[in-house]
Amino acid sequence: MFYNSDDIFALDNVRKAKFINSLGGFKSINLIGTINKNNQSNLAIFNSIVHIGANPPLIGFFTRPNSVERHTLQNILETRYYTFNHINKKIYEKAHQTSARYDASISEFDEVGLTAEFKNDFKAPFVQESIVQIGIAFKQKIDIEINSTILIIGEIVQVVFPKECLCADGYLDIEKSETITGSGLDSYHTTARLERLSYAKPDINLTTIPIKYVE
Amino acid sequence: MFYNSDDIFALDNVRKAKFINSLGGFKSINLIGTINKNNQSNLAIFNSIVHIGANPPLIGFFTRPNSVERHTLQNILETRYYTFNHINKKIYEKAHQTSARYDASISEFDEVGLTAEFKNDFKAPFVQESIVQIGIAFKQKIDIEINSTILIIGEIVQVVFPKECLCADGYLDIEKSETITGSGLDSYHTTARLERLSYAKPDINLTTIPIKYVE
Repeated sequence: MFYNSDDIFALDNVRKAKFINSLGGFKSINLIGTINKNNQSNLAIFNSIVHIGANPPLIGFFTRPNSVERHTLQNILETRYYTFNHINKKIYEKAHQTSARYDASISEFDEVGLTAEFKNDFKAPFVQESIVQIGIAFKQKIDIEINSTILIIGEIVQVVFPKECLCADGYLDIEKSETITGSGLDSYHTTARLERLSYAKPDINLTTIPIKYVE
Repeated sequence: MFYNSDDIFALDNVRKAKFINSLGGFKSINLIGTINKNNQSNLAIFNSIVHIGANPPLIGFFTRPNSVERHTLQNILETRYYTFNHINKKIYEKAHQTSARYDASISEFDEVGLTAEFKNDFKAPFVQESIVQIGIAFKQKIDIEINSTILIIGEIVQVVFPKECLCADGYLDIEKSETITGSGLDSYHTTARLERLSYAKPDINLTTIPIKYVE
């Protein structure tokens, strides 16, 4: 089947959102935990998360502007710290429910039944039920003028993860940690590894990298 | 296990790259097809792809700067059109092999054994073996000064996909189209759907959205 620009523009907005959101491939999904200056916690699912760089360790996500009420964005700009929390099979329904439009005075943690965990002297709440938890310091806000979205870039300053998921070469086995992925706006998927492949060089055959955890 | 900034900075660069690249979650991976002004084709795998917006339909990816030789970036800026091609189980090894540093005069299509497909009056080559193919028009280059990476944003102007994967509500079932996902720098994974969940509203229980394809 073939769609060109005219076919895409002819779709109604809901259908267009569902279709276009499916096209990039499977998505990184995380729960973002924040707190405002009055110590009110907020939790929201995001599916537009992207690796920006390893050195320094930077991660980004896209959000709509503050003109609509966006507690996550507002809290990050207010308090400068936030958390990414991987989503697993046990909590994906609660994670999805955080996307409902709750009032600012309501904590999504309480509403959906997830536990705000304050630890390691970190200002923002982690999700206790998440198996991989990441503490992030806000670094930069970039306005994407073409469609009025915003890219938020932060530096990874804390990582909590199960030791048995860490490979000897640094790779973290996020399948073993039960992290799931998403597609479109509302579909959730577990994964099954095909294999890890060796660093590619011209004229050299690829080999499988065996999964070898740290001792 | 707990890493803070000091622990992360203490990792050697290869280990740090593998670890940090694992943290965002499962990744959108695509083969990006381009052509230069002399009609030399290029193909490269990218794992930093992100949905930017549905209306207009925008998609982005991050790349390193042109100071290192980056044929994909150079070609996009030269010819303004490029393709995203989903990766499936049959071609992921060939897709991974495109990350080797081939000379600019070499087409990765030929080297790895994938087929450049020119069609629909589109300037850039699609990957014939990809089941979902997307034609994109370059819109904006944003320099991320914090680590000298570049965000390339394009508008989706063509989509080729199997009709039997399109749901009645606009969702494209990219699991049925055999699209796979990645984690870290080198791990490839198939997926298994848990479920699609209804639009979340406060105080309303979520329900499963049944997968219903167009007639």
